[in-house]
Amino acid sequence: MQLIDGKKVAADIKTEIAKQVGKIVSKGDKAPHLAAVLVGHDGASETYVDLKVKDCKAVGFRSSLIRHDENVKEEELLATVHDLNNDPEIDGFIVQLPLPAHISEQKVIEAIDPKKDVDGFHPMNLGRVVIGLPAFVSATPAGIMELIERYDIETSGKYCVVIGRSNIVGRPVSILLSRKAVPGNATVTVCHSRTKNIKDITRQADILISALGSPGFVTADMVKDGVVVIDVGTTRVKSDKTKSGWKLKGDINFDEVSPKASLITPVPGGVGPMTRVALLKNTLLAAEGKIYG
Amino acid sequence: MQLIDGKKVAADIKTEIAKQVGKIVSKGDKAPHLAAVLVGHDGASETYVDLKVKDCKAVGFRSSLIRHDENVKEEELLATVHDLNNDPEIDGFIVQLPLPAHISEQKVIEAIDPKKDVDGFHPMNLGRVVIGLPAFVSATPAGIMELIERYDIETSGKYCVVIGRSNIVGRPVSILLSRKAVPGNATVTVCHSRTKNIKDITRQADILISALGSPGFVTADMVKDGVVVIDVGTTRVKSDKTKSGWKLKGDINFDEVSPKASLITPVPGGVGPMTRVALLKNTLLAAEGKIYG
Repeated sequence: MQLIDGKKVAADIKTEIAKQVGKIVSKGDKAPHLAAVLVGHDGASETYVDLKVKDCKAVGFRSSLIRHDENVKEEELLATVHDLNNDPEIDGFIVQLPLPAHISEQKVIEAIDPKKDVDGFHPMNLGRVVIGLPAFVSATPAGIMELIERYDIETSGKYCVVIGRSNIVGRPVSILLSRKAVPGNATVTVCHSRTKNIKDITRQADILISALGSPGFVTADMVKDGVVVIDVGTTRVKSDKTKSGWKLKGDINFDEVSPKASLITPVPGGVGPMTRVALLKNTLLAAEGKIYG
Repeated sequence: MQLIDGKKVAADIKTEIAKQVGKIVSKGDKAPHLAAVLVGHDGASETYVDLKVKDCKAVGFRSSLIRHDENVKEEELLATVHDLNNDPEIDGFIVQLPLPAHISEQKVIEAIDPKKDVDGFHPMNLGRVVIGLPAFVSATPAGIMELIERYDIETSGKYCVVIGRSNIVGRPVSILLSRKAVPGNATVTVCHSRTKNIKDITRQADILISALGSPGFVTADMVKDGVVVIDVGTTRVKSDKTKSGWKLKGDINFDEVSPKASLITPVPGGVGPMTRVALLKNTLLAAEGKIYG
């Protein structure tokens, strides 16, 4: 069994991005510029946006944080999105979710210019993923694909089972793995809450990706020997062994499953760190005009 | 074994649409208006567009045909698309494919306002299908879903195998069947040219959808008893039994497979007639503002 070290790969990618930024700047061009829009003062959202700004600094990106009061009107937020769409100084931007209940998240997402949608949540980018056109892929599926590439995991002709059908993880990763591309060309089954006899399906998987959010859901009897396991689940569970009183747990019962696996991501330190770096990579792609030209 | 009679269902839907048009017109509103853009004089394209115009007439739609010479410049065609986007008299329109080699089909498709994209080829509509938002679904997957609904075929929790991963059939139908919706909630596997041991997979299918274009590909040993079979393949093969010298053949070896099936679509007369009626239904939805409001 080999661990897939997401932390190390993410660090490698950050170094690569920083080098690329160095090249851009030394040519006299401007460093990539990411903007984040934050509505209200939700603790988790504050933390996420903070990390994103820090990540930008670490690789030499410019960053801007635009704050709105939690009572902001939908029109005002849409006006901010509009301004960012039209601001030539901004290469890409995100609107931190969730938004307050009085604002339509879908409306805000669809107001973002797909060319600057570095979160990859706009239907246009999802549609381009389906068609196989260059697109901003959302952070988690992009991070998973990057791990698969960097660990040289063969996907062509492999049987891959994805547990979970969410718009931002299960569905896009299932499409990416099944596309006529490298990596890709896998035979993919998407399982979900209505799937019957899930064990019979997962037991056949060469590659198993779980994005369910149910700690320890996948047990040893659900996988075959030699399986590659990617654990997207990160659920906070109580723990008396940590100072904080909780720890992150994945969907995979790691102690049971890891001895059977050829490769497996730990939680934390697997997919998690890759999602942060995926946003940086998308911003670089946006700045270089590599998706929409 | 019961035949799925696409011809009859398509005729029923046409009657329903015609009734709905009657209601619209009797209220004093305008009948739905479909425009078709035809470039050049390709025989098959002429025939398809002809049928679309005839279908419109049959249900009481208005229709317009805009012709361009096959040497039309891309900018000119894009200008036509732009005009149709902005013409309040046009509810929906299609640009008949294929286009001459000097024109980028993708560019033309992406120039169409998604709100008038009744062919459902725009990435925005595909992306909305992925997210589960109201969208124009392309003709073949829409026709398949309609057959499944009208024949009360249970999909929730069923194991469904789709052969083929094209942007306009295999991929969207796999997403639609797997969505949290009715019909939907199936566990879906997408198979394709790189799939290994395909027989082991198809033999487990409760519902088998083949969109491969390989006549007679699915044989009796590839399905289990009681399977529901939807055959999307329509390949012209030589025949000495028809006047024309050819006949349409599906992906399914019908003589072998049909005795094992609980329900099966014939070729022709299965999915085919449904695709024509799907365009009419999308145009009606566009006219009524039922997708984008």
